[in-house]
Amino acid sequence: MREGFHEELETITALQLKMAVLVKDAIEKATSSLLNSDLGLAERVIEEDTQIDAIHHDLDERVIDLMARQQPVASDLRALVSAIRISADLERMGDLANHLAKLARMRYPDSAVPPEFTDLIANMGAEASRITDKMAVVIEFRDTTRALEIEKDDDAMDQLQRKLIASLVDTSGKHNVETPIDLAFASRYYERFSDHAVSIAQRIYYIATGEFAKS
Amino acid sequence: MREGFHEELETITALQLKMAVLVKDAIEKATSSLLNSDLGLAERVIEEDTQIDAIHHDLDERVIDLMARQQPVASDLRALVSAIRISADLERMGDLANHLAKLARMRYPDSAVPPEFTDLIANMGAEASRITDKMAVVIEFRDTTRALEIEKDDDAMDQLQRKLIASLVDTSGKHNVETPIDLAFASRYYERFSDHAVSIAQRIYYIATGEFAKS
Repeated sequence: MREGFHEELETITALQLKMAVLVKDAIEKATSSLLNSDLGLAERVIEEDTQIDAIHHDLDERVIDLMARQQPVASDLRALVSAIRISADLERMGDLANHLAKLARMRYPDSAVPPEFTDLIANMGAEASRITDKMAVVIEFRDTTRALEIEKDDDAMDQLQRKLIASLVDTSGKHNVETPIDLAFASRYYERFSDHAVSIAQRIYYIATGEFAKS
Repeated sequence: MREGFHEELETITALQLKMAVLVKDAIEKATSSLLNSDLGLAERVIEEDTQIDAIHHDLDERVIDLMARQQPVASDLRALVSAIRISADLERMGDLANHLAKLARMRYPDSAVPPEFTDLIANMGAEASRITDKMAVVIEFRDTTRALEIEKDDDAMDQLQRKLIASLVDTSGKHNVETPIDLAFASRYYERFSDHAVSIAQRIYYIATGEFAKS
């Protein structure tokens, strides 16, 4: 029975990784759709979010089924409860990429990102993508070193957000009134996206070590 | 054993209600701190968020302990998995009230909310408070009628947000550059607060009826 259990845990990890791959693809496409006012790409992100939602649902059903059949206790039970939380985080990351794509679509054929802000948004997108890669390694290998590193990457994301807000304030009057509103939302989506990756890394750190990651 | 189980489920519901009361208090105080530039009140919301986090942690530990000891299956297991998700939603609602209070604190002694926007923010605060009350009734009595009503209340919140954004665009040039940024964030916090209440109502509807609420 225990062997079956650990095989099933591996299936759950594989599904988490599949979600991570889709989420990374979504945030990269969403960023590109924002920077290039690419409606087709934005539409694809929005459509493909249903795939992420479907795996999320499937994953949760498998976890609940496993709990019911195997009656795990102690660390196995905690790993399954964490899996429920991790799939919720991944699903939410997909939603946030979706929100960014919807922002691109709303402003099309105009751009939500004026030229003076493209570098900052590109940097936020690149940081989100890097964090998602690292998160996937943490999921796959229970890599506690990288789990701790992600918190620093998240600090970099927060700094980019502060820089964006400061730049909006400095250049006020130069852009449309929609710009500060759009970019406040966009920066919030990237920041929350990154927070969920941190949250996943912290949950895996806890499962792997029995201790909370120091932040 | 089953009797003990249902008593413990009642304790869990009682803790969820305690969180709901604190969350309602937090969103009301946060709104008031924003509208009246009340630094003391903002500080209290920020401090009191640790209480919400503590109950969240306690609640999750009880649920995991109950899963380990009672080995529930079928609907009892689903109720416990839902409890984990509901406490996460409640904790997040506390965080969002906290963010609103931090916005008030950041702008003090100025106000983040110029006079022409006080009515809209007051309305969003009142709506958030009403939704939290209704959510508490849904938690306490598994009231499926009110669970469905909450989705309409959430539509009202979304409309208030759209109205706020439209009003920001209409009155651009009249206010500081910080105003559209601050109010975009504030409206997002209220909107997400309300989304989490909807999510809790939907989970309870599902547990009570075995069906997903139609939205």
